[in-house]
Amino acid sequence: MTAQMHEAGRTKEAGNRLQAWRTGIDTYQEPVVYMRRDCPVCRSEGFTTQARVQLTAGGRSIVATLSVVDGDWLAENVAGLSESAWASLGAQPGEPVAVTHAPPLDSLSHVRAKVYGNSLGDAQFGAIISDVAAGRYSDLHLATFITACAGDRLDLAETLSLTKAMIAVGDRIDWGRPLVVDKHCVGGLPGNRTTLLVVPIVTACGLMMPKTSSRAITSPAGTADTMEVLAPVNLDVPSMRRVVERTGGCIVWGGSVRLSPADDILIRVERPLDLDSEGQLVASVLSKKAAAGSTHVLIDLPVGATAKVRSAHAAASLGRRLQEVGGAIGLQVFLRVTDGEQPVGRGIGPALEARDVLAVLQGTREAPADLRERALRLAADILEMGGAAPAGGGLKLATEVLADGRAWAKFQAICSEQGGLRSLPMAAHLHTVESPGTGRVTRIDNRLLARAAKLAGAPTAPAAGIDVHARLGDRVEAGQPLFTLHAQAPGELAYALEFVRARPPIFQISENV
Amino acid sequence: MTAQMHEAGRTKEAGNRLQAWRTGIDTYQEPVVYMRRDCPVCRSEGFTTQARVQLTAGGRSIVATLSVVDGDWLAENVAGLSESAWASLGAQPGEPVAVTHAPPLDSLSHVRAKVYGNSLGDAQFGAIISDVAAGRYSDLHLATFITACAGDRLDLAETLSLTKAMIAVGDRIDWGRPLVVDKHCVGGLPGNRTTLLVVPIVTACGLMMPKTSSRAITSPAGTADTMEVLAPVNLDVPSMRRVVERTGGCIVWGGSVRLSPADDILIRVERPLDLDSEGQLVASVLSKKAAAGSTHVLIDLPVGATAKVRSAHAAASLGRRLQEVGGAIGLQVFLRVTDGEQPVGRGIGPALEARDVLAVLQGTREAPADLRERALRLAADILEMGGAAPAGGGLKLATEVLADGRAWAKFQAICSEQGGLRSLPMAAHLHTVESPGTGRVTRIDNRLLARAAKLAGAPTAPAAGIDVHARLGDRVEAGQPLFTLHAQAPGELAYALEFVRARPPIFQISENV
Repeated sequence: MTAQMHEAGRTKEAGNRLQAWRTGIDTYQEPVVYMRRDCPVCRSEGFTTQARVQLTAGGRSIVATLSVVDGDWLAENVAGLSESAWASLGAQPGEPVAVTHAPPLDSLSHVRAKVYGNSLGDAQFGAIISDVAAGRYSDLHLATFITACAGDRLDLAETLSLTKAMIAVGDRIDWGRPLVVDKHCVGGLPGNRTTLLVVPIVTACGLMMPKTSSRAITSPAGTADTMEVLAPVNLDVPSMRRVVERTGGCIVWGGSVRLSPADDILIRVERPLDLDSEGQLVASVLSKKAAAGSTHVLIDLPVGATAKVRSAHAAASLGRRLQEVGGAIGLQVFLRVTDGEQPVGRGIGPALEARDVLAVLQGTREAPADLRERALRLAADILEMGGAAPAGGGLKLATEVLADGRAWAKFQAICSEQGGLRSLPMAAHLHTVESPGTGRVTRIDNRLLARAAKLAGAPTAPAAGIDVHARLGDRVEAGQPLFTLHAQAPGELAYALEFVRARPPIFQISENV
Repeated sequence: MTAQMHEAGRTKEAGNRLQAWRTGIDTYQEPVVYMRRDCPVCRSEGFTTQARVQLTAGGRSIVATLSVVDGDWLAENVAGLSESAWASLGAQPGEPVAVTHAPPLDSLSHVRAKVYGNSLGDAQFGAIISDVAAGRYSDLHLATFITACAGDRLDLAETLSLTKAMIAVGDRIDWGRPLVVDKHCVGGLPGNRTTLLVVPIVTACGLMMPKTSSRAITSPAGTADTMEVLAPVNLDVPSMRRVVERTGGCIVWGGSVRLSPADDILIRVERPLDLDSEGQLVASVLSKKAAAGSTHVLIDLPVGATAKVRSAHAAASLGRRLQEVGGAIGLQVFLRVTDGEQPVGRGIGPALEARDVLAVLQGTREAPADLRERALRLAADILEMGGAAPAGGGLKLATEVLADGRAWAKFQAICSEQGGLRSLPMAAHLHTVESPGTGRVTRIDNRLLARAAKLAGAPTAPAAGIDVHARLGDRVEAGQPLFTLHAQAPGELAYALEFVRARPPIFQISENV
């Protein structure tokens, strides 16, 4: 060791401490640290912007991306933390923070190999997912990994490796029962909020269904977003366990129970990129089901020209992949292919979808028949798969339980255990788009509809979204309402409307049909 | 239009103005705007973190990524701009800034199509590159595009479309001459700094060679980084033109002449990701050569097990692609495959490489013979391809011009015109790694060597890098120096040394050879 190395060693011990300071900057989920260019740490360590640094305070370490600052608002002796860095480091204001180079990320070489078209195995996916779950990947690294696995770039063996790696970094709930049912919808269909109906129906029939749901990734509302309008969903595992023990079921946000820490991190980049991947979808869904302690899982696969799954062929291929990987990790996977040609129910967006759900549960005149029928079909499958109804007898039982109010009572009990049933918020800014001509509705573009609902503010603004007034095959007159945009802020209403006006018509009205 | 829409229109006119404020936050090149969560714009427009927003001041507009802030250091009525947002918006402190939703980025659907494995055509690449050049892509979008095109995912037609799209968004210099020569090295070989020798040799023989070079993307030094140690390289087009008119050549940074605005933006994400793509490499190189007004281009393709091009087969494939695309856009492309088994010269890193270049130009005893020979070979090719020497006579002419001092005089003239020859900086913190045993050097891992040089601070710290003391085939004794790490900061020296110690040996010493 040379004289310089001894000096370097000393620097490492003493010279690299700053004081923790909360900047209040929301960088979404990527941890960022702000340090003055002329602070002692940047000078001695040679740090520049975009460097990945390790922050250590009170024995806890995180990796963050550095932004160097020239500006008096940041003191020379502080490490300014973004909100996510502040939360994950858990430091006290003014507490000493040691700042060092982040350890080299060797698993990135596997990501690079995947980008270049090579196949990865258990060890490589294990290394990548373990680094992802530990927060060692920057958003750029995550974007590269997700893109490299997107489309159909993961084969069966790779999808299984990824699934196992994602299960390995999380916890797994043991319910002490031989049969725990679950469902998942592959999505892409606005308003398809059947979970909020299926869970109360099947738990009212004695099955156990501890449902963890996701927030929206690329859609205007995830099931967790919609449920949150009606009851708290940010439960931890002990609270979730209490709700399930008392009611047989729950509908909580999977991110708060943190059963799939890697998945929660990947989702933060999938959302702004609006990318899906078959392999990642399978790994994400099945690792969460395994972690939640499920044994029997029904997968709803809506198929339609503008849904996520666009053909019966694609549904069969995805379904087979789900069953193969499920079998390899000890999950029995059942499939139900459903019609995905148009939105389900009337509302798109958290509050508008929740309103439809309540109407079905309460059997009111406004209850959308399609949402009710889809939920009954899926509940019937689960009742039969779980042995609560004889083969072919599921639909009759599900229909009775919904009609006689047992499902509504069960839903209220679940909401109450999760923290209390809430009343629905309403949007203040509305605009109705009318039919330009007279004719029949021959096509509805789900993707444009979902994008317009997102531009109107959904799901961040829970009352925002779209109310759909016409369905496929309906006859409409010129000037008749097709759909209404709901927004909580005037700027968002204007933005969504501008989008709708600039695109091809979302509803195709044909005169001679 | 409803009452709400009129209200939205009014808000858009008046309510969305904040005052420009320079935060001094360096976010590398991504423009970021910091706004208080409770500011009037966030409240009226419903903006949340990660939103892409359009900022307009004095008729100039940019798109930036929003970070929402809860914190008193940022005033309620300001739009806090990152350094890159501040520079590109060009606002005055306190100037009103209008903040609106960024227009929807329709070209992202093409990126998504490419991610899912579809081929893109002229129109799609044109739309993507035009949005990239206009700064409408976030770093996450750029990472997705780059990953989707990485490896060999672009076919010939797509590579040509991308090249044409990149040329279309930039300027093209017209030198008014039928023959303008250029060279490019595909890279991956530390220390291969032949450009600084080739330009003075061939311009001393009367050819015109206006060389724009890049900064390091994934290497410890780019040609522009090395040249910058010796003379200013941040010239604009008129200054570059003046240098070339007076001396016949130049060596400037391509990013400052801004001939390839899209390429300059893509590189900002390629660097942290350490990703290369054949299609993007071809498009990047050839679009820059076309923009610089070159007509005849020599491509140096170093081949070696740990170089960027690893086999003669890969070199032939890449070379063919460069010639095909070059031909289609009117560039004559010549190839020279060179040995890429070990670093060139002794130094790795801007200042250490510049020192080697000066030794060759001045013919001193320390001049690395391999660097000298490689440069003479390439200069000879260019002299013949440009008609300054008869076929087979290039090497003799190049050798004479270097030996008699004309090349050194020309290099000084070019440096002087670019702003003056500078003296070399030296690193303060050194550590020499010695051979663990006695034997012959049978393998040198260029990739690990380059990574260690980067961890030591190169190229951001110009004096940082590695001095290599042994070459392939050399016999070394135990304890004999193999290489010396140079760093400007003690932390960086420690970090690089830690890396070297944790990896397999960079130099393989075999006893029985």
